[in-house]
Amino acid sequence: MTAVLGVDAGGTSTRAVLVDTDGRCLGYGRAGAGNPISAGMEHAASEILSAVTAAIRIAGLAATDVGPGILAMAGSGVNPDAGWIRSALVGAGLSGDVELRSDLLATFFSGTFEPDGYALVAGTGAAGIRVRNGVVDLAADGLGWLIGDVGSGYWIGARVVRDAVAALDGRAAPTALTGLLLDALGIEVGGKHADGRPAALLAVTDAVYRLRPVELSRFAPLAFAAHGDDAATRILAEAADALARLFGAVAMPGLVAPLVLGGSILAQDSVVATAVMTAADASGLVSQIRQVDDGVVGAAVLALRSAGVPVDAAVFERITGSLAGLR
Amino acid sequence: MTAVLGVDAGGTSTRAVLVDTDGRCLGYGRAGAGNPISAGMEHAASEILSAVTAAIRIAGLAATDVGPGILAMAGSGVNPDAGWIRSALVGAGLSGDVELRSDLLATFFSGTFEPDGYALVAGTGAAGIRVRNGVVDLAADGLGWLIGDVGSGYWIGARVVRDAVAALDGRAAPTALTGLLLDALGIEVGGKHADGRPAALLAVTDAVYRLRPVELSRFAPLAFAAHGDDAATRILAEAADALARLFGAVAMPGLVAPLVLGGSILAQDSVVATAVMTAADASGLVSQIRQVDDGVVGAAVLALRSAGVPVDAAVFERITGSLAGLR
Repeated sequence: MTAVLGVDAGGTSTRAVLVDTDGRCLGYGRAGAGNPISAGMEHAASEILSAVTAAIRIAGLAATDVGPGILAMAGSGVNPDAGWIRSALVGAGLSGDVELRSDLLATFFSGTFEPDGYALVAGTGAAGIRVRNGVVDLAADGLGWLIGDVGSGYWIGARVVRDAVAALDGRAAPTALTGLLLDALGIEVGGKHADGRPAALLAVTDAVYRLRPVELSRFAPLAFAAHGDDAATRILAEAADALARLFGAVAMPGLVAPLVLGGSILAQDSVVATAVMTAADASGLVSQIRQVDDGVVGAAVLALRSAGVPVDAAVFERITGSLAGLR
Repeated sequence: MTAVLGVDAGGTSTRAVLVDTDGRCLGYGRAGAGNPISAGMEHAASEILSAVTAAIRIAGLAATDVGPGILAMAGSGVNPDAGWIRSALVGAGLSGDVELRSDLLATFFSGTFEPDGYALVAGTGAAGIRVRNGVVDLAADGLGWLIGDVGSGYWIGARVVRDAVAALDGRAAPTALTGLLLDALGIEVGGKHADGRPAALLAVTDAVYRLRPVELSRFAPLAFAAHGDDAATRILAEAADALARLFGAVAMPGLVAPLVLGGSILAQDSVVATAVMTAADASGLVSQIRQVDDGVVGAAVLALRSAGVPVDAAVFERITGSLAGLR
């Protein structure tokens, strides 16, 4: 075995890395949507394989040089059977020795090598975990767009659309979100439809119901773009409050440990990320806060640990440093 | 022609009435879901026909005695073509002379014969209209569960579920809604699942995602049942605020006129209905408020008007009085 395999398979894109037992990243590959629940097993397996073979090619290795691997993905707790991806990997000449892990755990270990701490992820969905002894001790939210994912991209985007149409509909004060939404959908203002309402309202409604509900997350950036707008400010403040409560749900008195933030809403600095970091700091339960772009470093950490390789500060630094050179 | 036909076709049930030109109801029939958008054209046509033939049988009339009719249903503005129901009626020996009208307008005319005023309906969905000269002058909301229907049964029910699971998930203070929801779903408390969370949380999530989103409206009654609970009180107060804003969107300065309330959330007295009535009263734009169970009286009013029969106070009283005897 020359290297272990870490894969971070998401709903939009998939990342694979090959890392040797010193923590040096030898190859890195990227592909499309790799979550079997949202993309379908066949498509997901094909994208994951594409990322893995790209990483092998970059590393200049043979498929037989690749040791055991970890596939981090959402839903791994509910469907822990890895048979669908094992057979795809075996078909490509790999050992197929791969185990599934939580994408949240991979996010956590993308920010720290410590065995205990917290992770919050707010992308399309939103979830938090407490990690103890390297495994998920407690999870919160991640209950999906219909009844949970509070503070997520979906949650923010759905509110953007609701507030934008309420203003168009005369049920709320005007907001900059309306113009931003019409622009985003390529809908022009003007004209009346049969019920005395603006034609644009009917056009927005038609356009939005053609999307899958989770796709409303694409309108979340409009809330960040509408600087100073009352409705947008309120939406983002409520999202930050919800994510601070999410941290509160996984935080444990006495466990002062790292907090890792991931997902499009928290990975970059924004009013939401800043407010969540301030609230987490104020709890006194956070030793450091890291923002990470994805879970691929953590997938590598989990793959090394699973292969019996301890990951300390030096190994962790080597993973992140050498991966940065490959991306 | 012995009688005109009024049909109120809803997403759950359909009502048909035959009324003579003096406003006397001669026959009344009921059947299942008659909205072609939610139930499908074939099923809707069959249910409507079933209600109509029952009304004809009760009246002791022949199909050929039935004059022109009005079919009131949601979505009639978007799909005004009545071909699908005309051919079904012709197949049963009727003239097939039927026109579609807004279900909201039928609700309005179920509460008043005056040509101007307002109607608010909050059932599974929520919408409001301003009526002038007997037609819809302006509509508001009715934009569906994903982006509108604020204050509706869906809107309340979805919040009941969200608050109930947030409490189970440690993201919110305990609420009586959790126990009420578990009871409603037949889920027992107890046991932990893999992520350190209660098994009941996973069971609720599974059960709720098996429903169509609008079916979350079935949990709205739990908010009314949880007397004094903080979360339930807040949900109902927000629903009442939203419905008061909906009235504000259709209310017109200078137009002091009747307000008709319909739909399960507003047709009976409740904290929500009372708050909406108080807000509407305070506007000074409401001459009287009526709560109505459905739109079948209004469908009869619209059918008479469409046949050239003026509907005054005496005719309106005769319709409601004689229909009450048939139901």
